[in-house]
Amino acid sequence: MTLLQMDFTIRLPRWVAEMLAHSPKIFRTREDRMRFVVTLARENVQRQTGGPFGAGVFDASGCLVAPGVNVVVTSNCSILHAEMVAIALAQKKLGRYDISDEGKSDYELVTSTEPCAMCFGAIPWSGVTRLVCGARDEDARHIGFDEGPKLPNWQQALEERGVQVSRDVLRQEAVDVLNLYVKVGGVIYNAR
Amino acid sequence: MTLLQMDFTIRLPRWVAEMLAHSPKIFRTREDRMRFVVTLARENVQRQTGGPFGAGVFDASGCLVAPGVNVVVTSNCSILHAEMVAIALAQKKLGRYDISDEGKSDYELVTSTEPCAMCFGAIPWSGVTRLVCGARDEDARHIGFDEGPKLPNWQQALEERGVQVSRDVLRQEAVDVLNLYVKVGGVIYNAR
Repeated sequence: MTLLQMDFTIRLPRWVAEMLAHSPKIFRTREDRMRFVVTLARENVQRQTGGPFGAGVFDASGCLVAPGVNVVVTSNCSILHAEMVAIALAQKKLGRYDISDEGKSDYELVTSTEPCAMCFGAIPWSGVTRLVCGARDEDARHIGFDEGPKLPNWQQALEERGVQVSRDVLRQEAVDVLNLYVKVGGVIYNAR
Repeated sequence: MTLLQMDFTIRLPRWVAEMLAHSPKIFRTREDRMRFVVTLARENVQRQTGGPFGAGVFDASGCLVAPGVNVVVTSNCSILHAEMVAIALAQKKLGRYDISDEGKSDYELVTSTEPCAMCFGAIPWSGVTRLVCGARDEDARHIGFDEGPKLPNWQQALEERGVQVSRDVLRQEAVDVLNLYVKVGGVIYNAR
């Protein structure tokens, strides 16, 4: 145990680039953006590259800044939830740790399932000003995932920090992906 | 905004390797381990490579698995708190997303300041079974950092998930590093 690991690379699965090449440049409505991240989640399950979760950071015009998918099991890293991947890649692309650029711009984080305790805590630091959710956290718990120790009033806590929260956008489509994951025998990790 | 960023690399500052080369292989006591992560925090301030926070994952014998320092500003990434960096690097080194290997081993996360809302949420997913803290979250808030919307009973929430929590280990030494950061004019980011 003497070798020091000096770095760690977060990597999107290769198929994401191909999917992006065939996607529209602008996702005009909230539903368009959710449909896109639910498709990311579904592809992630079908291609067996991670858990049934997708996310994306979009600018005010609906242009995708960065996508994210859950790669916890395939990357051996517990922090790589879809939201965290999307946030890190968006910040790299924008060249700043505050996506909003000190409140000058509005960016939206769209996630196929409501954030777990970690991703909830990461959202205020990220600089996004809107959060749009598909499936509810109880839908994730229903298939055995653990959402962690979240504040009961987590949406209000985000609103108080300037992050507007929308729920249940295409909820059923997002739940369908969770169910697909169970059907194909996906690993429900960290469920102890 | 069309170029897709497919990856993002978390990187420790270069001086960490040098410091590790001159450090003991085993940190026998909790205080030894805390002194080490407080030194990481202090060096991070003095060398201007990030915020005043250090962390490390240690195995049951006190051997360092992976260090972490806060590199939010220098890496332009809001998720790169010291604890998150240490967790990601430890998981890479061990080759698994659950540090405890399904509860078979005990590992300790030592952090120079109590975790923010995000890092708190990340701890149960990481697989560490002990958390040792130096400065309190109120010490971080005292110099202007925001610890985020945390559960009031966050320690109990971790204990209920099998993570034993120790506080106030070399608290004053850790607070001294927070004060040093203010003295040298370090950026208090995300304080809005």
